[in-house]
Amino acid sequence: MDITNAQRAEVLVHALPYIQKYYDKVIVVKYGGNAMTSETLKNAVIGDILLLSLIGIKVVLVHGGGPEISDMLKRVGKKSEFVNGLRVTDEETVKIVQMVLAGGVNKSLVNLIQSKGGKAIGLCGLDGQLFEAKQRDPALGYVGEITKVNVDPVRDLLDRGYLPVVSTVGCDQEGNVYNINADTAAARLAAALGAESLISMTDTSGILRDKDDPSTLISRVGVSEAPQLMQEGIISGGMIPKVECCIEAIRRGVGRVFIIDGRVPHAILIEILTDEGIGTMLE
Amino acid sequence: MDITNAQRAEVLVHALPYIQKYYDKVIVVKYGGNAMTSETLKNAVIGDILLLSLIGIKVVLVHGGGPEISDMLKRVGKKSEFVNGLRVTDEETVKIVQMVLAGGVNKSLVNLIQSKGGKAIGLCGLDGQLFEAKQRDPALGYVGEITKVNVDPVRDLLDRGYLPVVSTVGCDQEGNVYNINADTAAARLAAALGAESLISMTDTSGILRDKDDPSTLISRVGVSEAPQLMQEGIISGGMIPKVECCIEAIRRGVGRVFIIDGRVPHAILIEILTDEGIGTMLE
Amino acid sequence: MDITNAQRAEVLVHALPYIQKYYDKVIVVKYGGNAMTSETLKNAVIGDILLLSLIGIKVVLVHGGGPEISDMLKRVGKKSEFVNGLRVTDEETVKIVQMVLAGGVNKSLVNLIQSKGGKAIGLCGLDGQLFEAKQRDPALGYVGEITKVNVDPVRDLLDRGYLPVVSTVGCDQEGNVYNINADTAAARLAAALGAESLISMTDTSGILRDKDDPSTLISRVGVSEAPQLMQEGIISGGMIPKVECCIEAIRRGVGRVFIIDGRVPHAILIEILTDEGIGTMLE
Amino acid sequence: MDITNAQRAEVLVHALPYIQKYYDKVIVVKYGGNAMTSETLKNAVIGDILLLSLIGIKVVLVHGGGPEISDMLKRVGKKSEFVNGLRVTDEETVKIVQMVLAGGVNKSLVNLIQSKGGKAIGLCGLDGQLFEAKQRDPALGYVGEITKVNVDPVRDLLDRGYLPVVSTVGCDQEGNVYNINADTAAARLAAALGAESLISMTDTSGILRDKDDPSTLISRVGVSEAPQLMQEGIISGGMIPKVECCIEAIRRGVGRVFIIDGRVPHAILIEILTDEGIGTMLE
Amino acid sequence: MDITNAQRAEVLVHALPYIQKYYDKVIVVKYGGNAMTSETLKNAVIGDILLLSLIGIKVVLVHGGGPEISDMLKRVGKKSEFVNGLRVTDEETVKIVQMVLAGGVNKSLVNLIQSKGGKAIGLCGLDGQLFEAKQRDPALGYVGEITKVNVDPVRDLLDRGYLPVVSTVGCDQEGNVYNINADTAAARLAAALGAESLISMTDTSGILRDKDDPSTLISRVGVSEAPQLMQEGIISGGMIPKVECCIEAIRRGVGRVFIIDGRVPHAILIEILTDEGIGTMLE
Amino acid sequence: MDITNAQRAEVLVHALPYIQKYYDKVIVVKYGGNAMTSETLKNAVIGDILLLSLIGIKVVLVHGGGPEISDMLKRVGKKSEFVNGLRVTDEETVKIVQMVLAGGVNKSLVNLIQSKGGKAIGLCGLDGQLFEAKQRDPALGYVGEITKVNVDPVRDLLDRGYLPVVSTVGCDQEGNVYNINADTAAARLAAALGAESLISMTDTSGILRDKDDPSTLISRVGVSEAPQLMQEGIISGGMIPKVECCIEAIRRGVGRVFIIDGRVPHAILIEILTDEGIGTMLE
Repeated sequence: MDITNAQRAEVLVHALPYIQKYYDKVIVVKYGGNAMTSETLKNAVIGDILLLSLIGIKVVLVHGGGPEISDMLKRVGKKSEFVNGLRVTDEETVKIVQMVLAGGVNKSLVNLIQSKGGKAIGLCGLDGQLFEAKQRDPALGYVGEITKVNVDPVRDLLDRGYLPVVSTVGCDQEGNVYNINADTAAARLAAALGAESLISMTDTSGILRDKDDPSTLISRVGVSEAPQLMQEGIISGGMIPKVECCIEAIRRGVGRVFIIDGRVPHAILIEILTDEGIGTMLE
Repeated sequence: MDITNAQRAEVLVHALPYIQKYYDKVIVVKYGGNAMTSETLKNAVIGDILLLSLIGIKVVLVHGGGPEISDMLKRVGKKSEFVNGLRVTDEETVKIVQMVLAGGVNKSLVNLIQSKGGKAIGLCGLDGQLFEAKQRDPALGYVGEITKVNVDPVRDLLDRGYLPVVSTVGCDQEGNVYNINADTAAARLAAALGAESLISMTDTSGILRDKDDPSTLISRVGVSEAPQLMQEGIISGGMIPKVECCIEAIRRGVGRVFIIDGRVPHAILIEILTDEGIGTMLE
Repeated sequence: MDITNAQRAEVLVHALPYIQKYYDKVIVVKYGGNAMTSETLKNAVIGDILLLSLIGIKVVLVHGGGPEISDMLKRVGKKSEFVNGLRVTDEETVKIVQMVLAGGVNKSLVNLIQSKGGKAIGLCGLDGQLFEAKQRDPALGYVGEITKVNVDPVRDLLDRGYLPVVSTVGCDQEGNVYNINADTAAARLAAALGAESLISMTDTSGILRDKDDPSTLISRVGVSEAPQLMQEGIISGGMIPKVECCIEAIRRGVGRVFIIDGRVPHAILIEILTDEGIGTMLE
Repeated sequence: MDITNAQRAEVLVHALPYIQKYYDKVIVVKYGGNAMTSETLKNAVIGDILLLSLIGIKVVLVHGGGPEISDMLKRVGKKSEFVNGLRVTDEETVKIVQMVLAGGVNKSLVNLIQSKGGKAIGLCGLDGQLFEAKQRDPALGYVGEITKVNVDPVRDLLDRGYLPVVSTVGCDQEGNVYNINADTAAARLAAALGAESLISMTDTSGILRDKDDPSTLISRVGVSEAPQLMQEGIISGGMIPKVECCIEAIRRGVGRVFIIDGRVPHAILIEILTDEGIGTMLE
Repeated sequence: MDITNAQRAEVLVHALPYIQKYYDKVIVVKYGGNAMTSETLKNAVIGDILLLSLIGIKVVLVHGGGPEISDMLKRVGKKSEFVNGLRVTDEETVKIVQMVLAGGVNKSLVNLIQSKGGKAIGLCGLDGQLFEAKQRDPALGYVGEITKVNVDPVRDLLDRGYLPVVSTVGCDQEGNVYNINADTAAARLAAALGAESLISMTDTSGILRDKDDPSTLISRVGVSEAPQLMQEGIISGGMIPKVECCIEAIRRGVGRVFIIDGRVPHAILIEILTDEGIGTMLE
Repeated sequence: MDITNAQRAEVLVHALPYIQKYYDKVIVVKYGGNAMTSETLKNAVIGDILLLSLIGIKVVLVHGGGPEISDMLKRVGKKSEFVNGLRVTDEETVKIVQMVLAGGVNKSLVNLIQSKGGKAIGLCGLDGQLFEAKQRDPALGYVGEITKVNVDPVRDLLDRGYLPVVSTVGCDQEGNVYNINADTAAARLAAALGAESLISMTDTSGILRDKDDPSTLISRVGVSEAPQLMQEGIISGGMIPKVECCIEAIRRGVGRVFIIDGRVPHAILIEILTDEGIGTMLE
């Protein structure tokens, strides 16, 4: 890197108002996509959230793990049936999901954060009944939707200075376990925590007016403008449920939601600590 | 049950001095064997530790999960090689171990405790670097021995009123993950917590003078008597490393260690809250 | 006792939901009658409340002491006049009442609790002006009715882990001392503490439909049903003011009131920790 | 009173360094003699300790009650036998002692303090096992000597802002109650609390070189000078055990002990808040 | 002084109800006039507030420093122009004002308090932005009026046991510094602290019906009576803005305001701790 | 600035380990020289310390103010005599010093910090008797040397989240005020606080082997090497007392001392948050 000490200092000084703005606030990061599969990007993301947590921001990392689940199901020779794009989840499958998310992906992220000097604890929706859930559709088996967020375990860990890493499985009072959509879980958790921001990492540049042209990025979308954008087809496909989660989060009190491009290294830092947003902000 | 109200009251009243004795003390329960595989016994154990925690005892549940690991390895078609009875653990295996213990067994125990009205959080040795470890023997791969116990995450959860459930995987500073023997981990954790007692659940009646005759149970073994009992072959086989862990725990400051028969329903309650010990106590 | 370890464990396990229900809640016990005069019963009662306080219930013991007062008055050769069944209490008498209750009965209960391993402090209504009172009827002299409960001294002792034992004398701002009815004082104190339950110990089996037939015990009386029962004469005599105190307690926010038979050993434990109520519950 | 506002202000200002000196320190007042039997003096004493407690001094009032005990024994027709000037105390007598001290004298003092605007709680040595004791001499029956002071109840009350009033009965682990000498109890309590000062109220002007001439008051006695004064007969009679208690208090860490004349109104204030000591100071 | 010990004690005892009344309450003292320029009076005032703070009253000292400012302006050869009796304050002048008040007068008072055994910290309106202000009138330059009181710095110091000494300069968000009228600042600070009393020291005997006859002192003025007194010319001249500040303080919740004669030694003590008010009380 | 978002992110990420290292540690900054007289540099310094305090470092700013003192003395027509390069400080002079430092320089720094969003409180050595001092040399008048540092006021402010700004005047128990050398005061305060680092701002590049050639900067000097460097004349002139203060600080427990070039913008940030030290580190 060819930047001088003076430039370095300038960068740090320019970050000051952003640090002041987020100080002691909660930011929930929904982590997924390429940023989670590429080792390089993963290291950059973990570095970013570690930095945020060090400068006094209370970061909560929420993750899913579709590819890892599929991989393990394949290894045990389990075939999945799909209904409307959602995997039919029988009891055997939900056990695999729980293991892979709460024991595999989750604890490996905890391990990575700590090998970089952080202090993390991994939770899933079963711990302290963080995510209470019920069956979404009998045809889908153990696919759940959240009925209640018991936010104390996350708050307790934040209070004690841990960075909570959260897997999105949930349970009901009888102890049935459900697979929960990670975007929804992150949005609901952010709302329950009264988070200042929710950062949703995707494999796109954000919401593009012309989806093949990154230069048409829409930097800011008001909650009231979203329906029009959906009607026009600008928000379409997999972006629709994601945006709906974001709107839900804002309606429940989250300050701002950022849909950012997880393929750009340090996208989180750039979004939070510099004056150039690099994705789409909903508010 | 044909016991009268008066008898019930008597039982409760007789428990009083034991409750007083353990009030606000830490008890670490090493959970394993039949007590963990039989659904009936499992329910009894969880009921017991829930009761203990309600009457003001700080219970920490430490578990392994050999059968579950073997089962999953089999399902993914992974064969294990053994050296001196210890499984050679390659990287692929340790990943399975982590998933099965920290995501499968652990979170299912958490779920069970909570469906009975408890408040639990599941940790593994990676969370808050609870168990720092190093390789035990290069020939065994990722089989680790504990180098340091960072007891804060467990204390923090106890302070906030959670029942910590702990899986015995560990890590080193570089983020390598190791499978840790559960007896050792429980003993070391009990010592680090300054526990009043360590309860080790086995599939035997305790230490028997004649191993085929339960009436020859030795109720109390002083730490200094153990070597003699080993020499005489009374403590033998798999009981040897278990007893060594117990002795180590006592040497590091744990008050008493109970080796109890996990096949007897409510063995923990009987041991802790009545005047009839049902296993072997080391002190 | 011929019950097995397994049965003992069952009893303890069955107590679990009741322990959970009352955990960290306040229970006020109005103590009196045979349970206070028989040494055996007294020991059983003290054992019971000690057990309750150990399993995390905040117990407050409120007592009167009619027989002890009469005895002492007799010893000093003081004759009592009665108006409507209430003793005319002159200045000399109220001094004896204060001494006997706050110095005799109260401190002896404290002493008994502590000789069994508890930690108690005895208060009377003068300490911290716990019970502010005024004269009830000039014809009765120093018989008082409570005008205000200053609950801080009791709360402070509970916060510091003491079991408060409370004598029912009160005072006004000028320092006049009054004898206070113990049922009323217990009810008012329970209300002021926001107690979960008030347990009133009597020398009857509870409210009986036929007062000579214990099998006609009414297990549950709703507050709204009481007037009808009084009209029918089922609640009659000395039970009327007692029930009125109970109703008053419920109206002021106490969860449930139990009128139990103090002549049955461990009646409190059976009522609180088992599924068989043995008296009449008002709610 | 013919003193001007300016003079009043001067008095208050002159008290400043004394207030600073004792701020947040513990002073134990051993209360007894005429100051406790005369209504006028009693009101003055209570006013004094109330003022001290308001200006930030932690006052603990310790009292006996010989005359009140004798009076009550007489009323119940109980004759006392004496051995070496100590009353033989049978079980019946110690019950009267407990009642009179802990229920009569103690609670009346509490009542008086509060009617003047203070916030007091009365304890005896049974509460929280404040004074553990054992039999002093079988020939004397229930006359005890202190074996241990469990100072927590007094500290807890001071912490919560109460003025503790303490009766000098004690108990052993079996629950036997003993009458304890008040001078000894006050000295031991002062030592256990690490008190700055112990004030012992007597019916003399202090230690007089010529006991019939108040002008021969010895203002200051060093602990090492006391034996000589005893040998010379200057400290004699009932003053000997009193002085021995004072010396014991100083040996156990109390800063200073003042033997003051309880017959002088406001002797405590004059001793503590002005530059003219009016009794004998031991240090 | 010819007053006896007994009289001294009486004075102290008479102060008791006043001490009780103000215990743990906040009193703001607006300090100025002769009481601040005469060394003798200054020592008396500091002694008084030190005594008040020792007996549990939370005293805040607010001061201006007109004579000291004028003196320094003269020394640096700066002439002042006046508009309606208010000094036109250019940038150079406001710098002198800041130095003289916050560095000179303020820290010297802190020093004096501490040399008498107190524990003080000096603040000005810039510290923690205690006084946010804006320009009052462009023609006057840096003369400010308070827009907001950020009371935390004063509360934080009181919580930690310091006596806060406050200079009346303020600032706006851009960092401009303003000279603030001390009467106004004291009144606003007292209101923001929810003070029990504001004591305003003047060089008069209070509000006099005939300003040349001290015997016509009006001891008590109700807020509603003030306009009439102004109309009648009884409150006139410099007393008008002072009284207006006092009324403002009461309207914003201060209990009582005392206008007292700073020329009388110990006027504060006499007003607060005796039954003879010596100035005019507004309420 | 021509640096990309990616580069910005890199800079922030590279700061991570330094932020971790200093998190929750105390850094004392001795502020002076050009960095305090140039408006641009002053703004950079204040920005730097604000950033440090935001990322969890506890910064204490210690300042002198020679030029401002000289300027004011000149304005009031006061001539200074010098002895061994130290100004003879008569009573009039020390009053000016107190005003200029504690009221002028100090409060203006507080004001500047707050106008940038910080939360500061200005103290001098008189507040809470932070710096107790005595006369250094009668010939110098009110030039003092520190006898004791009472660190509580600074700790209290840090605990409450304020950035303390400290002027270097001190006092003795009699209330005499002394001018204290700022390098010494900063070193002693850093030691008393157990600071991780002391940063001393100078108008040189650090310690240079050839003082005219900045490329000969000595980056690191061990405490034991300093005497040799002084003997060789490499540390000479005004650098000698500065280095002696630094050594004293290290001897008293400060981790590291940095002598940095205050003329370089953001020198503090570069020193603390990047891998290129820009001055001389003593340890």
